[in-house]
Amino acid sequence: MNPQTLNECERVAINLALNAGQMMQTSSGKKLQIDEKISYADLVTETDKAIEVYVFEELRKHFPTHRFIGEETSEKAPLTDEPTWIVDPIDGTMNFVHTFPFVCISIALIYNKEPILGVVYSPFLDKLYTAKKGFGAYCNGVPLKVRECESLQKALLIFELGNARDEEKINSVFANFQKLAFKCSGMRSTGSAALNICAIANGYADGYYEFGLHCWDLAAGVIILTEAGGCAMDTEGGSLDLMSRRLLVACNESLAKTISKELVSHLKLERDD
Amino acid sequence: MNPQTLNECERVAINLALNAGQMMQTSSGKKLQIDEKISYADLVTETDKAIEVYVFEELRKHFPTHRFIGEETSEKAPLTDEPTWIVDPIDGTMNFVHTFPFVCISIALIYNKEPILGVVYSPFLDKLYTAKKGFGAYCNGVPLKVRECESLQKALLIFELGNARDEEKINSVFANFQKLAFKCSGMRSTGSAALNICAIANGYADGYYEFGLHCWDLAAGVIILTEAGGCAMDTEGGSLDLMSRRLLVACNESLAKTISKELVSHLKLERDD
Repeated sequence: MNPQTLNECERVAINLALNAGQMMQTSSGKKLQIDEKISYADLVTETDKAIEVYVFEELRKHFPTHRFIGEETSEKAPLTDEPTWIVDPIDGTMNFVHTFPFVCISIALIYNKEPILGVVYSPFLDKLYTAKKGFGAYCNGVPLKVRECESLQKALLIFELGNARDEEKINSVFANFQKLAFKCSGMRSTGSAALNICAIANGYADGYYEFGLHCWDLAAGVIILTEAGGCAMDTEGGSLDLMSRRLLVACNESLAKTISKELVSHLKLERDD
Repeated sequence: MNPQTLNECERVAINLALNAGQMMQTSSGKKLQIDEKISYADLVTETDKAIEVYVFEELRKHFPTHRFIGEETSEKAPLTDEPTWIVDPIDGTMNFVHTFPFVCISIALIYNKEPILGVVYSPFLDKLYTAKKGFGAYCNGVPLKVRECESLQKALLIFELGNARDEEKINSVFANFQKLAFKCSGMRSTGSAALNICAIANGYADGYYEFGLHCWDLAAGVIILTEAGGCAMDTEGGSLDLMSRRLLVACNESLAKTISKELVSHLKLERDD
């Protein structure tokens, strides 16, 4: 994709993200229609749906030949080499319902099966993260750089329980948490995968892993992180597979590999494609 | 204490908190002198120490007859009925070292062994929480009210690993976490006790428990929470003991009692007095 087209994609995505943020702020704290998805810990609100409809309508107007994958509306489809927008209208819906401020929209553009543009906007934290492949990552216009951290003991890690409540998933979460929690400086949990990845990009924390997230949770964050100098891989240390629902990110490859070796349970989950 | 004196105490405390926030912002991300305390997960920086010295010097100038308890400089002392300032210069020091934004100063005034004034200021989140006994709680001047939440399954909870690394503490943390984590909507972990309590006051989350924190971590938060309509108690359901290093808070008493019943391990720790 040529730089002019990529710039135009970024301009449109940022505009849509800011408008989506406005929609979140308008409905935050209001009585909303809320439905459960896979469990009582996995919610969708009318605002998630309205934002996804709005964002895809606008993207289709601007880029009618592109493909689209969204959390709330799209069917499973294999990832092709065509330009594909992957959108999570609200990442952190449980937080949104509770007004816990770690809530964002995540918009990624994939080309040749790789993220080339990422926009993550959190209206409640007032953070706009952006990155284009080869052009660096930014938060509110300021260049991002990961922290330096070589040892697990000095690392601040992020983990998530996730929203599945089946026994296999629960046992896996505990096993990994129990192995890692007290070997590092601390564990944090924000409830937003996209903002967790951006936190590593921003140097707020050093590593994060999760099993069970979806391509729309991670695609934008991954390009923001790698453009900030960070590392994204499969939890077992291989190349990241956007559709495999397993993610390990860190401020550098050495720390990522150290975390990978500590993980004792690597769930295999139903793929996104 | 008469309302005029309490107002004057609040005015001074807010002013000191804002100046302390400025000191945190100035040194954030810089190379700092960092020392370990009880473990590699328990740090103190030169900024913690400088803020505590500054705040106590100023408080002593304004209130020479009061007593003072601080995280970094004071000796253990029994709590008396006299007006006593309890200060944590930086709550969330590990976050501060990593620039993870959940960092605050916590200033409480205790009288007749009860918190009557609380000021919690987070410069990186731009939140100033204040409360005086009988006069309500505020965030950036806006009145605070806890969320309504009756069932554990709909509750967003906060927990912390804490900074101890001894086996008894670690096992206790896991046992409670494992019992509660998948019965609620989600678990978050920010790394700042004072901001966790304020999050319940603000309606961001519904419950929080921790063993091992100190009076300076919780005293200001507790008056902010109770003035916002929330409930603070001992983890076993009795009255809160400020010096016992055990805290359970929730948006209401019913939820607090439900959480208390789920906790399987109630550590008894060396008291603060």
